[in-house]
Amino acid sequence: MSNLQAQVTSTDRAFHVEGYEKIEYDLIYVDGVFAVDNTELADSYRPYGRALMVIDETVLSLYGDAIRTYFDHHGLDLTVVPVQIRETAKSLETFETIVGEFDAFGLVRTEPVLVVGGGLTTDVAGYACASYRRNTPYIRIPTTLIGLIDASVSIKVAVNYGKHKNRLGAYHASQKVLLDFSFLATLPEDQVRNGMAELIKISVVGNSEIFDMLDEHGPDLLRTRFGHLDGSAELRAVGDRLTYAAIATMLDLEAPNLHEIDLDRVIAFGHTWSPTLELTPPAPFFHGHAINIDMALSTTLAEQRGHLTVADRDRVLGVMSRLGLALDSEFLTAELLADATGSILKTRDGLLRAAIPDPIGSCRFLNDVTTDELADALQMHKKLVEEFDRAGDGVDMFTGAHD
Amino acid sequence: MSNLQAQVTSTDRAFHVEGYEKIEYDLIYVDGVFAVDNTELADSYRPYGRALMVIDETVLSLYGDAIRTYFDHHGLDLTVVPVQIRETAKSLETFETIVGEFDAFGLVRTEPVLVVGGGLTTDVAGYACASYRRNTPYIRIPTTLIGLIDASVSIKVAVNYGKHKNRLGAYHASQKVLLDFSFLATLPEDQVRNGMAELIKISVVGNSEIFDMLDEHGPDLLRTRFGHLDGSAELRAVGDRLTYAAIATMLDLEAPNLHEIDLDRVIAFGHTWSPTLELTPPAPFFHGHAINIDMALSTTLAEQRGHLTVADRDRVLGVMSRLGLALDSEFLTAELLADATGSILKTRDGLLRAAIPDPIGSCRFLNDVTTDELADALQMHKKLVEEFDRAGDGVDMFTGAHD
Repeated sequence: MSNLQAQVTSTDRAFHVEGYEKIEYDLIYVDGVFAVDNTELADSYRPYGRALMVIDETVLSLYGDAIRTYFDHHGLDLTVVPVQIRETAKSLETFETIVGEFDAFGLVRTEPVLVVGGGLTTDVAGYACASYRRNTPYIRIPTTLIGLIDASVSIKVAVNYGKHKNRLGAYHASQKVLLDFSFLATLPEDQVRNGMAELIKISVVGNSEIFDMLDEHGPDLLRTRFGHLDGSAELRAVGDRLTYAAIATMLDLEAPNLHEIDLDRVIAFGHTWSPTLELTPPAPFFHGHAINIDMALSTTLAEQRGHLTVADRDRVLGVMSRLGLALDSEFLTAELLADATGSILKTRDGLLRAAIPDPIGSCRFLNDVTTDELADALQMHKKLVEEFDRAGDGVDMFTGAHD
Repeated sequence: MSNLQAQVTSTDRAFHVEGYEKIEYDLIYVDGVFAVDNTELADSYRPYGRALMVIDETVLSLYGDAIRTYFDHHGLDLTVVPVQIRETAKSLETFETIVGEFDAFGLVRTEPVLVVGGGLTTDVAGYACASYRRNTPYIRIPTTLIGLIDASVSIKVAVNYGKHKNRLGAYHASQKVLLDFSFLATLPEDQVRNGMAELIKISVVGNSEIFDMLDEHGPDLLRTRFGHLDGSAELRAVGDRLTYAAIATMLDLEAPNLHEIDLDRVIAFGHTWSPTLELTPPAPFFHGHAINIDMALSTTLAEQRGHLTVADRDRVLGVMSRLGLALDSEFLTAELLADATGSILKTRDGLLRAAIPDPIGSCRFLNDVTTDELADALQMHKKLVEEFDRAGDGVDMFTGAHD
């Protein structure tokens, strides 16, 4: 938790309050966070003799026994709140359910909630923590690739509202993020693919070395869960280097701007039109596929604008395609792009700020894309993707596919 | 809005993020904020050409014409969202209604919402602003005494949850608070009385000069709405001096601790047992009466502990009583005190931290009050208040009284 000390200056007719709040958090690598001889987690709960854990149901079914053994071994009472959060349940209703559990537990101020799961779980539970007593600390254990390399690096927490993704939320850093990549061994391939879209994002506009690694090892990393499932030691090492670089790059880009005052955000690549696209189908897109479609179109646009060679454009689209990520969708229409543009302009203070690669590994922001240019780019893009596998479709694109 | 810049340090196995967020806000006196030649408000909305105003229904019925004339005169489109917030409607449901209006309006990022009303209105609308896009700026115009001297000075916003007051919320300073005490002219007496409990609070434990002014002029200030209704120029001057001193004292006490990391809080006088008491009756207490009952009991306790003379104790109880504030209630029982103690211990990290005067104008915190001592103090208190007007009852104690 962070303090805020402010100074007051006053005249007869006014008071001015000004202060600085210290914000501090750690991301710590732990191999096998629930192995009984790893005390990192237990140490955080020993002062309380107990822990309230909000956990994704699927993760609980896989790791519940290990988790109970861990807390038993350390003499800590564990109360488990299982949640099943899909994109459609990332709602104020789920937020309220979690808050009700805090209440039933009798959570004491300063007692950190333990949040275990993917980005959806940590987003909703994190917003519940941000709101409960205006500031309840929490410790995150991300269990998905997207959680490990993206959601938990950020201090943003939120729920969806109406048709808008993450419309209600807070900036609320977890006290600590425990990074344990061995969870990837039990993560389904579609979830890993989903997370890899975030790696494409950070690499294509922020770090060309990561892109080179994805180009060379992408499908192998996907198949072997970054070397945690039937992988070679070399592949594991590549995976470790790649994810470490991704987190470091993301922190470098975001730390100067944690409250997003600067709206020209490199990591918003793929997030210009996708927020509207993602929730459009009856069963929403996986986040990774939605942003990938946006990134693919943005890449085509970058080439048309002369910021990317044709070869580089096709290299980017090729890496995406080989990972099974969608390049296009029937839901991506000129009308949707126009709607989505209107919506993002409100969020970005009247400017489009569309991030595009210029070239791979660097970023440029476009503010002058007209509806006509966008429709032209879309038309060209749809022709282009015909040449790629599955004619640009993704593998397992929709969240409802396994329901 | 405030930025947050952080530094990242890293090792092979960990990242540490550390930064400071700047927080800055102003409280500005304006006489007749909706008088057309007062441009303070219009200047804030000119860049947007429009304003979304969340306003208390009663305030709207009194000032709606003046407000519309004001915005018309300055060529600004005004969209009005009337809300009727009583303590029972300070809920997540009302929060959601307000958020829905932001959405319908198409609020642009950085566009400040205008919030006009008392502490309940600004608390709920402020939490909606805190959550919407994780950070929507707002400008507050408090129209009640409690809003002017207490709620708007703080950066806390919240809704009630379950039986808990303000359980869900945020720290979210308004960009600007416009302080216009002329609203007091139309404020019903019970509302002014309610606000005066906060003045008793700040004076009894924080500023003895304010207490002296309340002792001398309290009932006259109440009757004349601090000189804004049939008051003499002198009484208006006393009111101005008193409220300015109250705001300054509150800022001095709270600015070093805006996030309440230090839980020994002077301005929590009257807030130890009242959070449970306030919502207990079928129609909840007015906040002012609930905290006053807590302050009155705390004052009796202070004398029993030897921190206050009998004369000073009776002086405090006398000022309260002459203002029509409750000293006691049938709902205040030993059982309720035990329950409320259990509840506040969770919020105050296991310590009671009960603020009491030591002597008038200064504060001491008690952590060692046993259930038995509290029951004894209560018994003595109930005997004591028999000697005061209305046998310690307050005037218009319950929020349901006028529904």
